[in-house]
Amino acid sequence: MANPPQAFVTRKQDEDRVRDFHHIWHPCTQMKDYEEVPPLLIDRAEGIYLYDREGRRYMDVISSWWVNLFGHNHPRINRAIREQLDKMAHVMFAGVTHQPAIDLAQTLVKVSPPKLTKVFFSDNGSTSVEVALKMSLQYWLQTGKPQKTKFIYLKGGYHGETLGALSVCGIGLFRDKFEKVLMHNIEVEGPDCLRCPFGLERESCHAECFEPMAQTLEKNRESVAGVIVEPLVQGAAGMKMYPPVYLKKLEEACQATGVHVIYDEVAVGFGRTGSLFVSEHHGLNPTFLCLSKGITSGYLPLAATLTTDDIYQAFYDDYVSFKLFIRSHSYSANPLACAAANATLGLLIEPGFMDRLEPKIKMIGREGECLRDLPWCGEFRQTGMIAAVELVKDRDTLEAFPIEQRVGYQIFLEGLKREVYLRPLGNVVYFIPPLVIEPDQIATMMTAAHESITTVLKGT
Amino acid sequence: MANPPQAFVTRKQDEDRVRDFHHIWHPCTQMKDYEEVPPLLIDRAEGIYLYDREGRRYMDVISSWWVNLFGHNHPRINRAIREQLDKMAHVMFAGVTHQPAIDLAQTLVKVSPPKLTKVFFSDNGSTSVEVALKMSLQYWLQTGKPQKTKFIYLKGGYHGETLGALSVCGIGLFRDKFEKVLMHNIEVEGPDCLRCPFGLERESCHAECFEPMAQTLEKNRESVAGVIVEPLVQGAAGMKMYPPVYLKKLEEACQATGVHVIYDEVAVGFGRTGSLFVSEHHGLNPTFLCLSKGITSGYLPLAATLTTDDIYQAFYDDYVSFKLFIRSHSYSANPLACAAANATLGLLIEPGFMDRLEPKIKMIGREGECLRDLPWCGEFRQTGMIAAVELVKDRDTLEAFPIEQRVGYQIFLEGLKREVYLRPLGNVVYFIPPLVIEPDQIATMMTAAHESITTVLKGT
Repeated sequence: MANPPQAFVTRKQDEDRVRDFHHIWHPCTQMKDYEEVPPLLIDRAEGIYLYDREGRRYMDVISSWWVNLFGHNHPRINRAIREQLDKMAHVMFAGVTHQPAIDLAQTLVKVSPPKLTKVFFSDNGSTSVEVALKMSLQYWLQTGKPQKTKFIYLKGGYHGETLGALSVCGIGLFRDKFEKVLMHNIEVEGPDCLRCPFGLERESCHAECFEPMAQTLEKNRESVAGVIVEPLVQGAAGMKMYPPVYLKKLEEACQATGVHVIYDEVAVGFGRTGSLFVSEHHGLNPTFLCLSKGITSGYLPLAATLTTDDIYQAFYDDYVSFKLFIRSHSYSANPLACAAANATLGLLIEPGFMDRLEPKIKMIGREGECLRDLPWCGEFRQTGMIAAVELVKDRDTLEAFPIEQRVGYQIFLEGLKREVYLRPLGNVVYFIPPLVIEPDQIATMMTAAHESITTVLKGT
Repeated sequence: MANPPQAFVTRKQDEDRVRDFHHIWHPCTQMKDYEEVPPLLIDRAEGIYLYDREGRRYMDVISSWWVNLFGHNHPRINRAIREQLDKMAHVMFAGVTHQPAIDLAQTLVKVSPPKLTKVFFSDNGSTSVEVALKMSLQYWLQTGKPQKTKFIYLKGGYHGETLGALSVCGIGLFRDKFEKVLMHNIEVEGPDCLRCPFGLERESCHAECFEPMAQTLEKNRESVAGVIVEPLVQGAAGMKMYPPVYLKKLEEACQATGVHVIYDEVAVGFGRTGSLFVSEHHGLNPTFLCLSKGITSGYLPLAATLTTDDIYQAFYDDYVSFKLFIRSHSYSANPLACAAANATLGLLIEPGFMDRLEPKIKMIGREGECLRDLPWCGEFRQTGMIAAVELVKDRDTLEAFPIEQRVGYQIFLEGLKREVYLRPLGNVVYFIPPLVIEPDQIATMMTAAHESITTVLKGT
């Protein structure tokens, strides 16, 4: 380990990669993998492409971890940041305010569900969720129901990796090693449309799978503060998709039992599903809405937690009541990030923008046909601009590939050869491209995925 | 509440403030306070001054929540961001790397204590702490000591407000309302130099107050994963200061009992104490070092958790062992923020820069004399560029002002009248100015504080 592995030193001009190997611990990465395949050294990016030092380009079909909406180096977003930089990069956000944050808050309130009127800023998806959890807990404490201290989350749900956010995560891979220290929340069996226990289809069912949630809410109404879900698409679970009828039922049940609804639209918000927000598009009214990722179109870390006036009022009082929400990230509402977000929203709400996604969404479905026909296709699924193919060993039994086989990782390597940056989640190859992807690029993306999958799996 | 309060509408051009009041929930703020005194609407900033729309300026003596080092709108940092923006604002950091992050990691490793060789990036101080906590837990799990799941923290300690970070917070104001859901860690009575139970002075003592920590470590060595402290200055507790001998004892005791040492230098790092890092300056060797705030000189959110090769190796294995550290913030190592950080470190490590702080540090002490002479001065204390005066009702008994009196808030308002942005922590008026503050500005800052305090407290 003192010496960098062979894969590095045999390449010329790879000094930077050696320095990377010596000093950086990359996120969500087994660093030993880099002994054989070092990370791409990306120097610049343009549109939907990343460029390495040798000038090779890679199509960023997962939008740099689901954040980029309008491509890299977008002139309007770049300009917005440059102009704000000339005035002020940052200022504290307690006792002080600034126009980029005010504009952003007003726009978010305008385009989100009508009951959401207040915006609390933080830095990333995890903190946007933790803010919602803490506001919910403190709300109940200050309105005479201090026993409401638990949250319900779905199996397969993912809401970030700080310990609070992790306590509402329904994926063992993320939480198992920290189980002993996590707060005790309640996991509920959620929708699993590919393997629907009722044998129904997501297009026509009535969310019969809602029953466990209904029962859990009823049984725990006294102790539950809120329910948190990723609406329509469970991202980290492998882009698992379920129908909006589940959300309608959830809202009704939460209203009936006096429980907050927290929508985590960190991954699905800002146009990904073909509408600006899932909640707004389907006429849903969450108590909290958590936003991040696409909010700056993948330029800068920023997050927002939106909530209702009812919640806000439970904290609004004379100072000495100490009902205020004590939470203070130094970079709350960072003006540069707000400027990027304002430019992003400006682009998103331009007349006709969402309509122009329609043909792209259709094309993703059409081009995805080739994946549907693969002998290893358990399911090809799509919600707006998000699509995924779940690969299985056996189409009939839906038997999964053994984890040791690392099918996804091998497909990732094949993708790189084809200049497409796929990064499968386990055995799920997914696409969440920048919204500005063009028809010919959609075709290239799907063809590359098809070839990469076939190359890895033929003969298995 | 449907209508904005009178303080807003009577002012001209205050439409933005009304929008702020309607839509924004500010951090760490009782929003009702804004009915009488709305937040400053800051349009631009330059050097150590913030400018509002009417052209009034405020000296930023708390560096916009302790983040700014080189003043606002610094040409070198602005240029670094602009140049990076032309290439690439952001790219995912798993499977990909980039030069701004590599340069930054190498510099951090070079200037921090020698055993810290690996850098993990995230977005803010809370996450830098949560990363350290989780790495420590997972390290013990993967090295055969899964029972080590608790952390020791100091009374008065503050390490962020996500629920994991809050579980090692020793200040009731921040944690009490969430007590029921926090993981169970161990609070230890720490140094309290102003009210030293041994009647000693911090300049000459031998950290006799270390005894409770020594006993707790000894008693809980089997279950404790790590100890977390803010070295030398407990910021949120009111800039409470203690001597380095405490840290030497802590390091020895942790080594003897097999417990990780986590230094949270989020607030004190990057020159604040007159040295680059407390740990490096005092020859200390923590297992983890958490950094944020000043890392980008207050421009953009960024954080880093540094650790040792020993920790790293416990995660380094074949993928199928699943020993990897699964943690993935979308904006990890954001290139724009890394560019700002590289420019910041470039300025900090320029030959002679730290030496040039010396006369400023002396001047803060000298000018602070006027505060020391106040009849309400419990203590004037200073560590490098950080200074604070703890105001008390009675100098002899050190009796505090009742919380309902809101002495600190009134001093804040008086400060604004004198164009100085003080933001006391309770009854502690503190100064943590940008490192580039000039001698005449130090004098102005202290004079304004003296006047503001006197105006509020005379006659009490």
